[in-house]
Amino acid sequence: MSHPDPTCPQTPLLDAIATPADVKALPERLLPQLAQEIRDRMVAVVSKTGGHLAPSLGVVELTLALCRVFDFPADKLIWDVGHQAYAWKMVTGRNARMETLRRFGGVRGFPFPGESPYDAAVGGHAGVALATALGFAAARDVRGGREHVIAVVGDASLTNGVSLEALNAVRHTTDRLILVVNDNGMSISRNVGALARLFARRLTGLRYNRIRAAAEAAGHRLRLNRLKAFYRGFKAIVKSVLLRNRSGIFEDLGFRYFGPIDGHDVPALCDALRAAAENAGPVVLHIATVKGKGYPPAERNPAKWHGVGPWAADAKPAACAAVRSWSEAFGAALCARAARAPAIEAITAAMRDGTGLADFFRRFPAQAHDVGICEEYAVAFAAGLAAAGRRPVVALYSTFAQRAVDNLMHDVCLPNLPVVLCLDRAGVVGPDGPTHHGLYDLAMLRALPNLEIRVPATRPALEAALDAALSRPGPTVIRYPRGYVHEGPAPRLPGASPDAPLILALGHTVFWAEPVAKALGLALEPVESVKPLPDFVRGLGARPLITLEDAAAVGGFGSAVAEVHRGPLLILGWPDRFVPQGSEPELRAACGLDAAGLRMRIAAFVGGLPGGRHG
Amino acid sequence: MSHPDPTCPQTPLLDAIATPADVKALPERLLPQLAQEIRDRMVAVVSKTGGHLAPSLGVVELTLALCRVFDFPADKLIWDVGHQAYAWKMVTGRNARMETLRRFGGVRGFPFPGESPYDAAVGGHAGVALATALGFAAARDVRGGREHVIAVVGDASLTNGVSLEALNAVRHTTDRLILVVNDNGMSISRNVGALARLFARRLTGLRYNRIRAAAEAAGHRLRLNRLKAFYRGFKAIVKSVLLRNRSGIFEDLGFRYFGPIDGHDVPALCDALRAAAENAGPVVLHIATVKGKGYPPAERNPAKWHGVGPWAADAKPAACAAVRSWSEAFGAALCARAARAPAIEAITAAMRDGTGLADFFRRFPAQAHDVGICEEYAVAFAAGLAAAGRRPVVALYSTFAQRAVDNLMHDVCLPNLPVVLCLDRAGVVGPDGPTHHGLYDLAMLRALPNLEIRVPATRPALEAALDAALSRPGPTVIRYPRGYVHEGPAPRLPGASPDAPLILALGHTVFWAEPVAKALGLALEPVESVKPLPDFVRGLGARPLITLEDAAAVGGFGSAVAEVHRGPLLILGWPDRFVPQGSEPELRAACGLDAAGLRMRIAAFVGGLPGGRHG
Repeated sequence: MSHPDPTCPQTPLLDAIATPADVKALPERLLPQLAQEIRDRMVAVVSKTGGHLAPSLGVVELTLALCRVFDFPADKLIWDVGHQAYAWKMVTGRNARMETLRRFGGVRGFPFPGESPYDAAVGGHAGVALATALGFAAARDVRGGREHVIAVVGDASLTNGVSLEALNAVRHTTDRLILVVNDNGMSISRNVGALARLFARRLTGLRYNRIRAAAEAAGHRLRLNRLKAFYRGFKAIVKSVLLRNRSGIFEDLGFRYFGPIDGHDVPALCDALRAAAENAGPVVLHIATVKGKGYPPAERNPAKWHGVGPWAADAKPAACAAVRSWSEAFGAALCARAARAPAIEAITAAMRDGTGLADFFRRFPAQAHDVGICEEYAVAFAAGLAAAGRRPVVALYSTFAQRAVDNLMHDVCLPNLPVVLCLDRAGVVGPDGPTHHGLYDLAMLRALPNLEIRVPATRPALEAALDAALSRPGPTVIRYPRGYVHEGPAPRLPGASPDAPLILALGHTVFWAEPVAKALGLALEPVESVKPLPDFVRGLGARPLITLEDAAAVGGFGSAVAEVHRGPLLILGWPDRFVPQGSEPELRAACGLDAAGLRMRIAAFVGGLPGGRHG
Repeated sequence: MSHPDPTCPQTPLLDAIATPADVKALPERLLPQLAQEIRDRMVAVVSKTGGHLAPSLGVVELTLALCRVFDFPADKLIWDVGHQAYAWKMVTGRNARMETLRRFGGVRGFPFPGESPYDAAVGGHAGVALATALGFAAARDVRGGREHVIAVVGDASLTNGVSLEALNAVRHTTDRLILVVNDNGMSISRNVGALARLFARRLTGLRYNRIRAAAEAAGHRLRLNRLKAFYRGFKAIVKSVLLRNRSGIFEDLGFRYFGPIDGHDVPALCDALRAAAENAGPVVLHIATVKGKGYPPAERNPAKWHGVGPWAADAKPAACAAVRSWSEAFGAALCARAARAPAIEAITAAMRDGTGLADFFRRFPAQAHDVGICEEYAVAFAAGLAAAGRRPVVALYSTFAQRAVDNLMHDVCLPNLPVVLCLDRAGVVGPDGPTHHGLYDLAMLRALPNLEIRVPATRPALEAALDAALSRPGPTVIRYPRGYVHEGPAPRLPGASPDAPLILALGHTVFWAEPVAKALGLALEPVESVKPLPDFVRGLGARPLITLEDAAAVGGFGSAVAEVHRGPLLILGWPDRFVPQGSEPELRAACGLDAAGLRMRIAAFVGGLPGGRHG
């Protein structure tokens, strides 16, 4: 990393930037220096904290241009999937605290209104920025306000259902809205399958990377030329249609279209943003950015550097190859089964790597479906596959699966179809915080008839759950957390007597409970199914029970036990408030779910028997 | 209703139609007679059963044409929002049972795979047919099958998020799929606001109805001319873009476009369907139909005849103007508050009449938003309005709100915004059956932090809940059932002693419980909040409790009580299986929730004390 002209020492600028107004006051010639300082700082911070580096590197110039043209926080800026927002945080008064990024009590990894008046909306789940922006715009219009409302949406988010619903609504909702489409040509580039071939034919033999390289060689300070616009044809179809100016679809949708603009040219961006601000109707500003811009390792491999853990001075993302993650275990198990059972189909929603399915996609491409950020479609599509005799396995992050609850109920559970839904990141996920914790799945899904919900504690149990699900004639959810999986076996501790207090620990929390149970001399049983509950749970009479789960305590496993148990019960899980970001140990400690907290709460419950029921 | 030529008696045809193959075997000249018999029968049946008459009248010829061209059930037909499927049911072996339509134990009002091998998928919630069809197509392709997969989607469903996600996926999923767009120009015709004006300008003064009338006068046996295609411009923008052939967007999406075709011309439809079946790639077949076709009252007022109750010989839908429904009470209450509080905004998703908001839309058009069948967008949009200082009230049916669970969590509850979500049809809805019962909302929403959930028992309590929600700084859900609202007060019965068994009845179920409590001499308390639970519930010690709710017994109000109560508990609600269609009394009797069932179950619980906990 170096400044534009390392031979000429410069006065640092970033430290003096407290608000967007300070960016506006800088002479234009200093903006490249400020951009470089932001990038240097961002890389330095993320090398220690981990985070979404490549997306945030890509929008540094956009962030500066927005600050120069608009008046925040009077004007409203809404980031779709706000992991692009690190530069935004640095120029809106949070630079000094960036070392705390994604840490417990620190700066959040996503925009959050409670953190700063400059963050207009929560930005953790993709596709909602335009819808929320329309709410801001409608409120302004009815009030007769003059402020601008700007949504910045990545190209991959455009094909999400909520985005498309919002695009449909723009023209009859407001006359004044600016939609910045941040097109980095990457987000779902591996997602196109037949489309890539279709476009490849049009390109008459030219390869994507060669075109891209040629466009890059033409100079990234130049406004993008037709060639560069053309390579962005490598996209899912709707997105392609939306972004190709010649199709005029944005005009049909009621927008005026400006673009494509070089997203790393601040003066060009400012010109375009000013034109957009002065336009009499809604505007789409289509900008082309390079993901990872300015940090060569991230530019070379933006997918790898999309979200990274802390790394050492040699700039390698942290890895822990010796231990297997739940995602990897799931992916390997599914591959092993697909090799024997050709009816298996794998479906993911833009999380091929995150859900451990990359190898499945390589080995079984005809049975692998990455549908983009379309969780609803993923489950409805799986219903069709299952009805036609296939064995679909949908892998989603627990929090994103909330999008598909209705499809699970209506399309899968009601006709009782053998769809397997694997919920990765079920439980707290750590530094990504409350938008990404998977705490509500049990409560949301437990009431659905015909559904079974499995929560394996170990890798062999995950495999057994998958086998059971794949041979069941109805639907199954299997949930498991982020992080590394135990090989097993799950610990089981006998109690002093058949009516002594018993800890029922759901899934991997049996490993949280084991030292506590030993220390307190209590019985411990692993539970690996929430629906149905294991038969033995219904036969525990009035025995005092403690339930433990990596899920919200309201409505989950403990609640299921409470519905059937007649004796004293202590329900332990995540409390009824949004759980912040932090490491798993920090979060468990903060919520009384670490060993000390569990021991204290369980001891108090046991000590007070017969007595208090809830923790 | 009359046969085409009443002077010439004809041999009835419909009685001899047992399968689609019988339709295929008929001489073409007899098809108009068969269509007329189907319509006569449909009107006769629905006049007794009630149902979705106008949509089903509109697709009689389409149904016959599909039967003539394809081989069902080998080929797969998927209806989006299957209330169009009455003719389909009549020609697939269910005609003799049509008198049982929508009745307990009878023919379902929607396609259902368990009912007939001809019904390929459940069709109750809009927007999923194309996604499910893609699953069928992908399964066929991997298997090397040759069957056709056909999705019939109404124009209003096209702008739903799942539909749009599926449109995006077609080209990289299959080469063989037929999408029939049933464009009746009605579904959300009142939904366009500024768009209607935009198109009206293009029409240089011609009015929609005049154009339509002119097109009709040109003869409905003719293929539709440009004029008729033009009037369909009265649509939301995306839909307009999708359907206008000149825009070529279906081609951009990978489809070959055929249309528009007169949807009441069987030979023309057959020609087009055959061409579609022989085409080498995915096809959109754009057909224009008249909602209510062939039954003059329904043709004149298709919105009124969309879904109707039974009516007498004089063809008037049933009405009960003397008693006020929950929907009407909500609409009136919101209007009264909006007159005093100009920050209130009302949002509905294509259910302006159903949710009781029609009057609000007339009186406060600038604060009223019908967003079409886009529940996700409705809630995300409300989040923006609330963040900008408005007081949005979103009214959805409980079952359709399942689409917006993620938006409620991420966009509303996490930033703790004052959005009010009113869930109409919460509880069993009667003849529309399991796709429309609103039984899972409490379980799905109860775990969300910051949320309050109110369940008023009476009209005054609904108004009080609305006032509380509108003055609260955070989000509130208010749920209430289909049907008529009690004026109150909610009955309350004292018990024999402070530790005698107590019935806690949620919302309107206090009126179910009252006669039972009286007969058994038990105490009864109405409960009107699930989250938080009323303080007194937490202070009931070991008192035996019976909870009652018009929701799934798993995960709902009873579960919330179970989490905190220390004494014996009987949870009464809808069982853990999908509840069929039927009248409310029939369904309650079938599930032990009528007076006799409640009395028996509660008596057994009380008689067994201390003892059994769950019913």
